[in-house]
Amino acid sequence: MLLEKLNWRYAAKKMDPSKAVPEDKVERIVEAARLAPTSSGLQPFTLLVVTNKEIREKIKPIAWNQGQITDCSHLLVFAAWDNYTAERINTMFDLVNAERNFTSEGWENYRKMLLDTYPPRDAQVNFEHAARQAYIALGLAITAAAFEGVDATPMEGFDPTALDEILDLRAKGLRSVAILPLGYREPENDWLVNLKKVRRAREDFVIEVK
Amino acid sequence: MLLEKLNWRYAAKKMDPSKAVPEDKVERIVEAARLAPTSSGLQPFTLLVVTNKEIREKIKPIAWNQGQITDCSHLLVFAAWDNYTAERINTMFDLVNAERNFTSEGWENYRKMLLDTYPPRDAQVNFEHAARQAYIALGLAITAAAFEGVDATPMEGFDPTALDEILDLRAKGLRSVAILPLGYREPENDWLVNLKKVRRAREDFVIEVK
Repeated sequence: MLLEKLNWRYAAKKMDPSKAVPEDKVERIVEAARLAPTSSGLQPFTLLVVTNKEIREKIKPIAWNQGQITDCSHLLVFAAWDNYTAERINTMFDLVNAERNFTSEGWENYRKMLLDTYPPRDAQVNFEHAARQAYIALGLAITAAAFEGVDATPMEGFDPTALDEILDLRAKGLRSVAILPLGYREPENDWLVNLKKVRRAREDFVIEVK
Repeated sequence: MLLEKLNWRYAAKKMDPSKAVPEDKVERIVEAARLAPTSSGLQPFTLLVVTNKEIREKIKPIAWNQGQITDCSHLLVFAAWDNYTAERINTMFDLVNAERNFTSEGWENYRKMLLDTYPPRDAQVNFEHAARQAYIALGLAITAAAFEGVDATPMEGFDPTALDEILDLRAKGLRSVAILPLGYREPENDWLVNLKKVRRAREDFVIEVK
Protein backbone atom coordinates (compact mmCIF):
# COMPACT_ATOMS: atom_id res chain seq x y z
CA MET A 1 0.00 0.00 0.00
CA LEU A 2 2.81 2.41 0.89
CA LEU A 3 4.69 1.12 -2.16
CA GLU A 4 1.62 1.68 -4.36
CA LYS A 5 1.54 5.30 -3.24
CA LEU A 6 5.27 5.70 -3.83
CA ASN A 7 4.87 4.25 -7.31
CA TRP A 8 1.92 6.55 -8.00
CA ARG A 9 3.84 9.67 -7.16
CA TYR A 10 6.27 11.40 -9.48
CA ALA A 11 7.74 14.88 -9.75
CA ALA A 12 4.86 16.59 -11.55
CA LYS A 13 6.27 18.96 -14.15
CA LYS A 14 2.97 20.73 -14.86
CA MET A 15 0.41 21.50 -12.21
CA ASP A 16 -3.15 22.70 -12.76
CA PRO A 17 -3.37 26.26 -11.43
CA SER A 18 -7.16 25.99 -11.12
CA LYS A 19 -7.00 23.24 -8.47
CA ALA A 20 -6.09 24.02 -4.87
CA VAL A 21 -5.10 21.41 -2.31
CA PRO A 22 -7.67 21.36 0.54
CA GLU A 23 -6.36 22.70 3.85
CA ASP A 24 -6.93 19.43 5.73
CA LYS A 25 -4.65 17.64 3.31
CA VAL A 26 -1.99 20.31 3.60
CA GLU A 27 -2.20 20.06 7.38
CA ARG A 28 -1.61 16.30 7.33
CA ILE A 29 1.41 16.78 5.06
CA VAL A 30 2.77 19.45 7.41
CA GLU A 31 2.09 17.17 10.39
CA ALA A 32 4.09 14.34 8.79
CA ALA A 33 7.04 16.71 8.44
CA ARG A 34 6.61 17.83 12.03
CA LEU A 35 6.65 14.21 13.23
CA ALA A 36 9.87 13.39 11.37
CA PRO A 37 12.60 12.00 13.59
CA THR A 38 15.73 14.15 13.73
CA SER A 39 19.16 13.84 15.27
CA SER A 40 18.85 14.22 19.07
CA GLY A 41 15.27 15.34 18.46
CA LEU A 42 16.42 18.88 17.72
CA GLN A 43 14.15 19.45 14.69
CA PRO A 44 16.69 21.93 13.32
CA PHE A 45 14.49 23.46 10.65
CA THR A 46 11.33 25.43 10.00
CA LEU A 47 8.68 24.69 7.43
CA LEU A 48 7.29 27.64 5.51
CA VAL A 49 3.94 27.30 3.79
CA VAL A 50 3.81 29.93 1.08
CA THR A 51 0.40 30.58 -0.43
CA ASN A 52 0.93 34.28 -1.22
CA LYS A 53 0.81 34.56 -5.00
CA GLU A 54 2.96 37.68 -5.37
CA ILE A 55 5.74 36.11 -3.34
CA ARG A 56 5.57 32.92 -5.41
CA GLU A 57 5.78 35.08 -8.54
CA LYS A 58 8.99 36.53 -7.10
CA ILE A 59 10.40 33.08 -6.32
CA LYS A 60 9.74 31.65 -9.79
CA PRO A 61 12.47 33.58 -11.67
CA ILE A 62 15.12 32.62 -9.10
CA ALA A 63 14.08 28.97 -9.57
CA TRP A 64 14.62 28.47 -13.29
CA ASN A 65 11.08 29.70 -13.93
CA GLN A 66 9.65 26.36 -12.90
CA GLY A 67 5.91 26.71 -13.37
CA GLN A 68 4.90 24.52 -10.42
CA ILE A 69 5.96 27.33 -8.08
CA THR A 70 3.05 29.48 -9.18
CA ASP A 71 0.72 26.72 -10.49
CA CYS A 72 0.72 24.89 -7.15
CA SER A 73 -1.56 26.09 -4.36
CA HIS A 74 0.92 25.65 -1.48
CA LEU A 75 4.66 25.99 -1.73
CA LEU A 76 6.50 24.30 1.14
CA VAL A 77 9.96 25.68 1.90
CA PHE A 78 12.27 23.64 4.11
CA ALA A 79 14.63 26.03 5.90
CA ALA A 80 17.40 24.58 8.05
CA TRP A 81 19.01 26.26 11.05
CA ASP A 82 22.09 28.19 9.94
CA ASN A 83 23.91 26.95 13.04
CA TYR A 84 23.47 25.07 16.31
CA THR A 85 23.51 27.54 19.20
CA ALA A 86 23.31 26.88 22.94
CA GLU A 87 19.97 28.69 22.98
CA ARG A 88 18.48 26.48 20.29
CA ILE A 89 19.74 23.30 21.93
CA ASN A 90 18.51 24.38 25.36
CA THR A 91 15.10 25.30 23.98
CA MET A 92 14.56 21.75 22.71
CA PHE A 93 15.89 20.06 25.84
CA ASP A 94 13.76 22.34 28.03
CA LEU A 95 10.71 21.57 25.90
CA VAL A 96 11.28 17.85 26.33
CA ASN A 97 11.59 18.27 30.10
CA ALA A 98 8.44 20.40 30.22
CA GLU A 99 6.41 18.00 28.07
CA ARG A 100 7.52 14.92 29.99
CA ASN A 101 7.40 16.70 33.31
CA PHE A 102 10.67 15.27 34.56
CA THR A 103 14.31 15.05 33.68
CA SER A 104 17.14 12.62 34.36
CA GLU A 105 20.86 12.78 34.85
CA GLY A 106 21.46 10.87 31.64
CA TRP A 107 19.34 13.32 29.66
CA GLU A 108 21.07 16.33 31.21
CA ASN A 109 24.48 14.80 30.53
CA TYR A 110 23.43 14.31 26.93
CA ARG A 111 22.39 17.98 26.73
CA LYS A 112 25.77 19.00 28.11
CA MET A 113 27.58 16.82 25.60
CA LEU A 114 25.71 18.48 22.71
CA LEU A 115 26.34 21.95 24.18
CA ASP A 116 30.05 21.12 24.41
CA THR A 117 30.18 19.70 20.88
CA TYR A 118 27.83 21.52 18.50
CA PRO A 119 28.09 25.28 19.15
CA PRO A 120 31.93 25.37 18.95
CA ARG A 121 31.86 23.64 15.55
CA ASP A 122 32.06 25.49 12.27
CA ALA A 123 28.67 26.97 11.37
CA GLN A 124 28.75 25.39 7.91
CA VAL A 125 29.26 21.92 9.39
CA ASN A 126 26.30 22.51 11.70
CA PHE A 127 24.17 23.84 8.85
CA GLU A 128 24.96 20.81 6.68
CA HIS A 129 23.96 18.55 9.56
CA ALA A 130 20.72 20.47 10.07
CA ALA A 131 20.02 20.33 6.33
CA ARG A 132 20.22 16.54 6.38
CA GLN A 133 17.60 16.43 9.12
CA ALA A 134 15.35 18.67 7.04
CA TYR A 135 15.66 16.14 4.23
CA ILE A 136 14.26 13.38 6.45
CA ALA A 137 11.20 15.60 6.91
CA LEU A 138 11.17 16.29 3.18
CA GLY A 139 10.98 12.52 2.64
CA LEU A 140 8.06 12.23 5.05
CA ALA A 141 6.24 15.17 3.46
CA ILE A 142 6.68 13.63 0.00
CA THR A 143 5.24 10.35 1.29
CA ALA A 144 2.37 12.09 3.06
CA ALA A 145 1.49 13.99 -0.11
CA ALA A 146 1.38 10.72 -2.04
CA PHE A 147 -0.98 9.33 0.60
CA GLU A 148 -3.27 12.30 0.15
CA GLY A 149 -3.26 11.93 -3.64
CA VAL A 150 -1.53 15.28 -3.83
CA ASP A 151 1.25 15.92 -6.30
CA ALA A 152 4.49 17.18 -4.84
CA THR A 153 7.64 18.02 -6.76
CA PRO A 154 10.80 18.21 -4.63
CA MET A 155 13.10 20.92 -5.98
CA GLU A 156 16.62 22.05 -5.30
CA GLY A 157 16.82 24.06 -8.50
CA PHE A 158 16.64 27.54 -7.01
CA ASP A 159 19.05 30.19 -5.79
CA PRO A 160 19.00 29.68 -2.01
CA THR A 161 20.58 33.07 -1.27
CA ALA A 162 17.91 34.83 -3.30
CA LEU A 163 15.12 32.75 -1.74
CA ASP A 164 16.46 33.48 1.74
CA GLU A 165 16.25 37.15 0.87
CA ILE A 166 12.71 36.99 -0.50
CA LEU A 167 11.50 35.16 2.62
CA ASP A 168 13.77 37.06 5.03
CA LEU A 169 15.19 33.79 6.33
CA ARG A 170 18.70 34.80 7.37
CA ALA A 171 17.35 37.25 9.95
CA LYS A 172 15.57 34.25 11.48
CA GLY A 173 18.77 32.16 11.48
CA LEU A 174 17.45 29.97 8.67
CA ARG A 175 18.67 28.92 5.22
CA SER A 176 16.44 27.39 2.57
CA VAL A 177 17.48 23.90 1.45
CA ALA A 178 14.58 22.46 -0.55
CA ILE A 179 11.14 23.47 -1.80
CA LEU A 180 8.09 21.31 -2.40
CA PRO A 181 5.15 22.67 -4.41
CA LEU A 182 1.87 20.93 -3.54
CA GLY A 183 -0.82 20.81 -6.19
CA TYR A 184 -2.44 18.65 -8.82
CA ARG A 185 -0.89 17.39 -12.01
CA GLU A 186 -2.16 18.63 -15.39
CA PRO A 187 -1.47 15.43 -17.35
CA GLU A 188 -2.19 16.80 -20.83
CA ASN A 189 0.65 19.31 -20.43
CA ASP A 190 3.12 17.23 -18.45
CA TRP A 191 5.92 15.61 -20.44
CA LEU A 192 6.89 13.35 -17.54
CA VAL A 193 3.55 11.95 -16.44
CA ASN A 194 3.50 9.00 -18.81
CA LEU A 195 7.18 8.18 -18.75
CA LYS A 196 8.43 5.17 -16.85
CA LYS A 197 9.75 5.78 -13.35
CA VAL A 198 13.40 4.74 -13.48
CA ARG A 199 15.40 3.54 -10.51
CA ARG A 200 18.54 1.43 -10.29
CA ALA A 201 17.65 -2.25 -10.12
CA ARG A 202 17.60 -3.69 -6.61
CA GLU A 203 20.82 -5.63 -7.29
CA ASP A 204 22.60 -2.42 -8.27
CA PHE A 205 21.18 -0.53 -5.30
CA VAL A 206 21.60 -2.97 -2.41
CA ILE A 207 24.68 -4.68 -1.00
CA GLU A 208 23.88 -7.57 1.30
CA VAL A 209 26.39 -8.33 4.03
CA LYS A 210 25.43 -11.80 5.18
CA MET B 1 -3.46 6.48 8.80
CA LEU B 2 0.05 7.61 7.82
CA LEU B 3 0.04 9.93 10.83
CA GLU B 4 -1.05 7.07 13.11
CA LYS B 5 1.94 5.07 11.95
CA LEU B 6 4.27 8.02 12.42
CA ASN B 7 2.92 8.51 15.93
CA TRP B 8 3.32 4.80 16.67
CA ARG B 9 6.97 4.78 15.72
CA TYR B 10 9.79 5.95 17.97
CA ALA B 11 13.52 5.36 18.15
CA ALA B 12 13.50 2.02 20.00
CA LYS B 13 16.32 2.03 22.51
CA LYS B 14 16.10 -1.70 23.29
CA MET B 15 15.33 -4.32 20.70
CA ASP B 16 14.48 -7.95 21.32
CA PRO B 17 17.35 -10.07 19.94
CA SER B 18 15.09 -13.14 19.72
CA LYS B 19 12.79 -11.57 17.13
CA ALA B 20 13.82 -11.28 13.49
CA VAL B 21 12.07 -9.09 10.94
CA PRO B 22 10.59 -11.29 8.17
CA GLU B 23 12.32 -10.94 4.81
CA ASP B 24 9.22 -9.73 2.99
CA LYS B 25 8.96 -6.80 5.38
CA VAL B 26 12.63 -5.97 4.96
CA GLU B 27 12.19 -6.09 1.20
CA ARG B 28 9.32 -3.59 1.28
CA ILE B 29 11.38 -1.25 3.46
CA VAL B 30 14.31 -1.53 1.04
CA GLU B 31 11.94 -0.95 -1.87
CA ALA B 32 10.63 2.27 -0.30
CA ALA B 33 14.22 3.52 -0.05
CA ARG B 34 14.83 2.51 -3.66
CA LEU B 35 11.75 4.44 -4.80
CA ALA B 36 12.81 7.62 -3.01
CA PRO B 37 13.02 10.64 -5.29
CA THR B 38 16.48 12.17 -5.54
CA SER B 39 18.00 15.22 -7.17
CA SER B 40 18.05 14.71 -10.97
CA GLY B 41 17.13 11.08 -10.27
CA LEU B 42 20.78 10.20 -9.63
CA GLN B 43 20.13 8.02 -6.53
CA PRO B 44 23.61 8.86 -5.29
CA PHE B 45 23.82 6.23 -2.57
CA THR B 46 23.84 2.53 -1.88
CA LEU B 47 21.87 0.71 0.78
CA LEU B 48 23.70 -2.00 2.70
CA VAL B 49 21.68 -4.65 4.50
CA VAL B 50 23.92 -6.11 7.19
CA THR B 51 22.70 -9.31 8.77
CA ASN B 52 26.15 -10.81 9.50
CA LYS B 53 26.41 -11.00 13.28
CA GLU B 54 30.20 -10.82 13.54
CA ILE B 55 30.29 -7.67 11.46
CA ARG B 56 27.57 -6.10 13.57
CA GLU B 57 29.57 -7.01 16.68
CA LYS B 58 32.46 -5.07 15.13
CA ILE B 59 30.28 -2.07 14.36
CA LYS B 60 28.80 -1.82 17.85
CA PRO B 61 31.93 -0.49 19.63
CA ILE B 62 32.45 2.21 17.01
CA ALA B 63 28.82 3.28 17.55
CA TRP B 64 28.78 4.07 21.26
CA ASN B 65 27.98 0.42 21.99
CA GLN B 66 24.36 0.95 21.06
CA GLY B 67 22.69 -2.39 21.62
CA GLN B 68 20.22 -2.14 18.75
CA ILE B 69 23.09 -2.75 16.32
CA THR B 70 23.40 -6.36 17.48
CA ASP B 71 19.88 -6.84 18.89
CA CYS B 72 18.24 -5.92 15.58
CA SER B 73 17.97 -8.53 12.83
CA HIS B 74 18.84 -6.25 9.89
CA LEU B 75 21.10 -3.24 10.03
CA LEU B 76 20.57 -0.84 7.14
CA VAL B 77 23.54 1.35 6.27
CA PHE B 78 22.98 4.36 4.01
CA ALA B 79 26.20 5.07 2.14
CA ALA B 80 26.39 8.14 -0.08
CA TRP B 81 28.58 8.60 -3.14
CA ASP B 82 31.86 10.20 -2.15
CA ASN B 83 31.70 12.36 -5.29
CA TYR B 84 29.79 12.92 -8.52
CA THR B 85 31.81 11.62 -11.43
CA ALA B 86 31.05 11.74 -15.15
CA GLU B 87 30.82 7.95 -15.13
CA ARG B 88 28.21 7.89 -12.37
CA ILE B 89 26.14 10.62 -14.00
CA ASN B 90 26.31 8.96 -17.40
CA THR B 91 25.34 5.59 -15.95
CA MET B 92 22.07 7.03 -14.62
CA PHE B 93 21.27 9.00 -17.76
CA ASP B 94 22.02 5.97 -19.92
CA LEU B 95 19.80 3.82 -17.68
CA VAL B 96 16.93 6.26 -18.08
CA ASN B 97 17.35 6.25 -21.86
CA ALA B 98 17.49 2.45 -21.92
CA GLU B 99 14.44 2.02 -19.68
CA ARG B 100 12.35 4.57 -21.57
CA ASN B 101 13.69 3.50 -24.94
CA PHE B 102 14.20 7.00 -26.27
CA THR B 103 15.96 10.20 -25.48
CA SER B 104 15.37 13.87 -26.19
CA GLU B 105 17.45 16.95 -26.79
CA GLY B 106 16.24 18.50 -23.54
CA TRP B 107 17.27 15.45 -21.56
CA GLU B 108 20.69 15.30 -23.21
CA ASN B 109 21.21 19.01 -22.59
CA TYR B 110 20.34 18.42 -18.97
CA ARG B 111 22.91 15.61 -18.79
CA LYS B 112 25.51 17.93 -20.29
CA MET B 113 24.68 20.64 -17.76
CA LEU B 114 25.20 18.22 -14.87
CA LEU B 115 28.43 16.90 -16.40
CA ASP B 116 29.67 20.48 -16.72
CA THR B 117 28.64 21.39 -13.17
CA TYR B 118 29.01 18.46 -10.75
CA PRO B 119 32.34 16.69 -11.47
CA PRO B 120 34.44 19.90 -11.38
CA ARG B 121 33.02 20.82 -7.96
CA ASP B 122 34.78 20.06 -4.71
CA ALA B 123 34.26 16.40 -3.73
CA GLN B 124 33.06 17.37 -0.25
CA VAL B 125 30.34 19.61 -1.70
CA ASN B 126 29.23 16.74 -3.93
CA PHE B 127 29.30 14.27 -1.04
CA GLU B 128 27.19 16.58 1.15
CA HIS B 129 24.69 16.88 -1.67
CA ALA B 130 24.59 13.12 -2.12
CA ALA B 131 24.20 12.65 1.65
CA ARG B 132 21.09 14.82 1.64
CA GLN B 133 19.54 12.61 -1.02
CA ALA B 134 20.31 9.56 1.09
CA TYR B 135 18.39 11.21 3.93
CA ILE B 136 15.26 11.43 1.79
CA ALA B 137 15.51 7.66 1.37
CA LEU B 138 16.18 7.32 5.10
CA GLY B 139 12.90 9.16 5.71
CA LEU B 140 11.05 6.81 3.37
CA ALA B 141 12.62 3.72 4.97
CA ILE B 142 11.63 4.95 8.44
CA THR B 143 8.06 5.46 7.23
CA ALA B 144 7.98 2.09 5.51
CA ALA B 145 9.21 0.38 8.69
CA ALA B 146 6.43 2.05 10.67
CA PHE B 147 3.93 0.75 8.10
CA GLU B 148 5.26 -2.76 8.57
CA GLY B 149 5.03 -2.49 12.36
CA VAL B 150 8.80 -2.81 12.46
CA ASP B 151 10.88 -0.75 14.85
CA ALA B 152 13.63 1.32 13.28
CA THR B 153 16.05 3.57 15.09
CA PRO B 154 17.83 6.11 12.89
CA MET B 155 21.36 6.65 14.14
CA GLU B 156 24.18 9.02 13.34
CA GLY B 157 26.08 8.18 16.50
CA PHE B 158 28.89 6.19 14.95
CA ASP B 159 32.37 6.80 13.64
CA PRO B 160 31.83 6.96 9.86
CA THR B 161 35.50 6.51 9.02
CA ALA B 162 35.65 3.34 11.11
CA LEU B 163 32.38 2.06 9.65
CA ASP B 164 33.60 2.75 6.13
CA GLU B 165 36.63 0.65 6.93
CA ILE B 166 34.65 -2.26 8.41
CA LEU B 167 32.38 -2.37 5.36
CA ASP B 168 35.12 -1.48 2.85
CA LEU B 169 33.07 1.44 1.56
CA ARG B 170 35.74 3.88 0.40
CA ALA B 171 37.03 1.40 -2.17
CA LYS B 172 33.50 1.44 -3.60
CA GLY B 173 33.43 5.26 -3.66
CA LEU B 174 30.95 5.35 -0.78
CA ARG B 175 30.80 6.99 2.65
CA SER B 176 28.40 5.93 5.39
CA VAL B 177 26.02 8.67 6.53
CA ALA B 178 23.33 7.01 8.64
CA ILE B 179 22.40 3.58 9.96
CA LEU B 180 18.97 2.14 10.66
CA PRO B 181 18.62 -1.04 12.74
CA LEU B 182 15.38 -2.92 11.99
CA GLY B 183 13.93 -5.09 14.73
CA TYR B 184 11.31 -5.28 17.42
CA ARG B 185 11.14 -3.24 20.60
CA GLU B 186 11.61 -4.94 23.98
CA PRO B 187 9.31 -2.62 25.95
CA GLU B 188 10.19 -3.90 29.44
CA ASN B 189 13.80 -2.83 28.94
CA ASP B 190 13.30 0.33 26.90
CA TRP B 191 13.44 3.61 28.85
CA LEU B 192 11.97 5.57 25.95
CA VAL B 193 9.00 3.45 24.96
CA ASN B 194 6.52 5.02 27.39
CA LEU B 195 7.78 8.57 27.24
CA LYS B 196 5.83 11.18 25.34
CA LYS B 197 6.95 11.95 21.80
CA VAL B 198 8.01 15.58 21.86
CA ARG B 199 7.96 17.89 18.87
CA ARG B 200 7.82 21.65 18.57
CA ALA B 201 4.22 22.83 18.49
CA ARG B 202 2.88 23.50 15.00
CA GLU B 203 2.94 27.28 15.63
CA ASP B 204 6.64 27.09 16.50
CA PHE B 205 7.42 24.84 13.53
CA VAL B 206 5.50 26.44 10.67
CA ILE B 207 5.65 29.94 9.21
CA GLU B 208 2.71 30.75 6.98
CA VAL B 209 3.31 33.25 4.20
CA LYS B 210 -0.17 34.26 3.14
